[in-house]
Amino acid sequence: MSLVTVGTVAFDSLETPYGKAEMVVGGAALYASIAASYFTKDIKLVSVVGEDWPRKEMKYLKTRGINLDGLQIKEGEKSFFWKGKYHDNMNQRDTLATDLNVLANFDPILPESYKRSKYLMLGNLTPEVQMKVINQMKKRPRLVVLDTMNFWMDVAMPALKKVIKKVDVLTINDEEARQLSGEYSLVTAAKKIQKMGPKFLIIKKGEHGAMLFQGEKMFYAPALPLAKVFDPTGAGDTFAGGFIGYIAKTNSITFENMKRAVIYGSCLASFCVEEFSISRLKKLKAADVNKRVKKFENLVKFSMK
Amino acid sequence: MSLVTVGTVAFDSLETPYGKAEMVVGGAALYASIAASYFTKDIKLVSVVGEDWPRKEMKYLKTRGINLDGLQIKEGEKSFFWKGKYHDNMNQRDTLATDLNVLANFDPILPESYKRSKYLMLGNLTPEVQMKVINQMKKRPRLVVLDTMNFWMDVAMPALKKVIKKVDVLTINDEEARQLSGEYSLVTAAKKIQKMGPKFLIIKKGEHGAMLFQGEKMFYAPALPLAKVFDPTGAGDTFAGGFIGYIAKTNSITFENMKRAVIYGSCLASFCVEEFSISRLKKLKAADVNKRVKKFENLVKFSMK
Repeated sequence: MSLVTVGTVAFDSLETPYGKAEMVVGGAALYASIAASYFTKDIKLVSVVGEDWPRKEMKYLKTRGINLDGLQIKEGEKSFFWKGKYHDNMNQRDTLATDLNVLANFDPILPESYKRSKYLMLGNLTPEVQMKVINQMKKRPRLVVLDTMNFWMDVAMPALKKVIKKVDVLTINDEEARQLSGEYSLVTAAKKIQKMGPKFLIIKKGEHGAMLFQGEKMFYAPALPLAKVFDPTGAGDTFAGGFIGYIAKTNSITFENMKRAVIYGSCLASFCVEEFSISRLKKLKAADVNKRVKKFENLVKFSMK
Repeated sequence: MSLVTVGTVAFDSLETPYGKAEMVVGGAALYASIAASYFTKDIKLVSVVGEDWPRKEMKYLKTRGINLDGLQIKEGEKSFFWKGKYHDNMNQRDTLATDLNVLANFDPILPESYKRSKYLMLGNLTPEVQMKVINQMKKRPRLVVLDTMNFWMDVAMPALKKVIKKVDVLTINDEEARQLSGEYSLVTAAKKIQKMGPKFLIIKKGEHGAMLFQGEKMFYAPALPLAKVFDPTGAGDTFAGGFIGYIAKTNSITFENMKRAVIYGSCLASFCVEEFSISRLKKLKAADVNKRVKKFENLVKFSMK
């Protein structure tokens, strides 16, 4: 089924305890689209880059079935750039530079062919831009997923709450769920957030996994413990892309199918962190995914007899 | 099967965001023994208290099938006392007072009837005291579980490593696993720690659950997300007691059975935190446990079709 993915397409410079990478490709829409492309082929990307963003990566995206008609290329301008350094524990990072560049005036314009897509993934961006995308859809998508972060809660809470009201699935981390709801318990936080609009809530807990909430229903998917997390950049976007990609492929939004989507999202994210940028995702084979999903199954499997 | 439980029996004064409790009963051996008593009846406690420790609580322990022949009562002395305050997030706490009292010169003496017990649970104490208990066993227990904490890694690492070498199951939290192994990845940490002696490692992650490692095998049991964590004191000891109690009951140390024991331990711990001290554990019924275990099963259950 058709899927629109919205978010940044950017450059990142990264430093992790394992090494450095300068000006590698990144961005929420990049990671999410590639992850989704492992499940479905009718993907339509919405973003903006400068003339510096590599043409060969655009070609690569097309080979993955990703339509770039909605990718604006601004001549004479530079792509969004983020520079960050991860601490030893990989759970904390310092932002060393954020150059908005083309993102400063990003006005998303959906091509006509995008406007009746069945699924919509809104990656982390200003709530206003996310809202503009929703408003351009001619038909309400079957499922709208929105990812955001604490920054927008700090500086644009009213706009964020407006757009959250319009979506079906919200994906945030545990600290963000606490900030958004004002509740420490994630169970209570989930109840409050569901009253703000989204029927489904996904709480991402990094190395501790992810939780899915719908009404009284609750599902906990652990992350796969890895011997080495090389670079966590993009893991959350890869998770979201794998999640919505699997939903778009199966075209089912039952809680049981969403659980599977959470597992596939977690699985794709576990590959993402094994190398810098999109390197590991690019080499990924369907067999790798299936093999690792088995590991997720075994990790939590028990029988009370 | 017979089970020896060793650890503190104490008084705690606690402050949590939900309230205060002054001089309530606590201690690792208290929580662990009560938790274990939900599964097995032949429990033999080893600890020390002052003359101030309530006789009525001793009576209660006896009603739970807990043998107190190994509980030394020091006339004219005071019981171990700990005072702490939990932060809003319940994951961090400040120790406001630690009065060792009777614990300062604790010399554990095992009654003859204890020395051939099949299972041994060594709660958090100085590594020397833990070693003294192991050395008094006339027959090597089928399974020795040891719980410890970062404090002993800071001040008594050589003695700790000596006793760790002698045990089968080590239970520590994630930060402690990192400190003990010098590895950030829990997968790598687990491998290193298993080389130090214990065939099994349990890493407790508080609200994020617990992991069980044996060789290449790995099991992740999430904690049950709760609307309200009233008082986390004793949760780790309750977990350990539930774990070893279930093992002692079933008398099986296969990985599959240990998984069940981890789930039962997590289940008992989820009750422990609902009220101050041992209040919730005292009221617990078998039906409550079975009902909650079902929740743990549902929390992680998924099928990839």
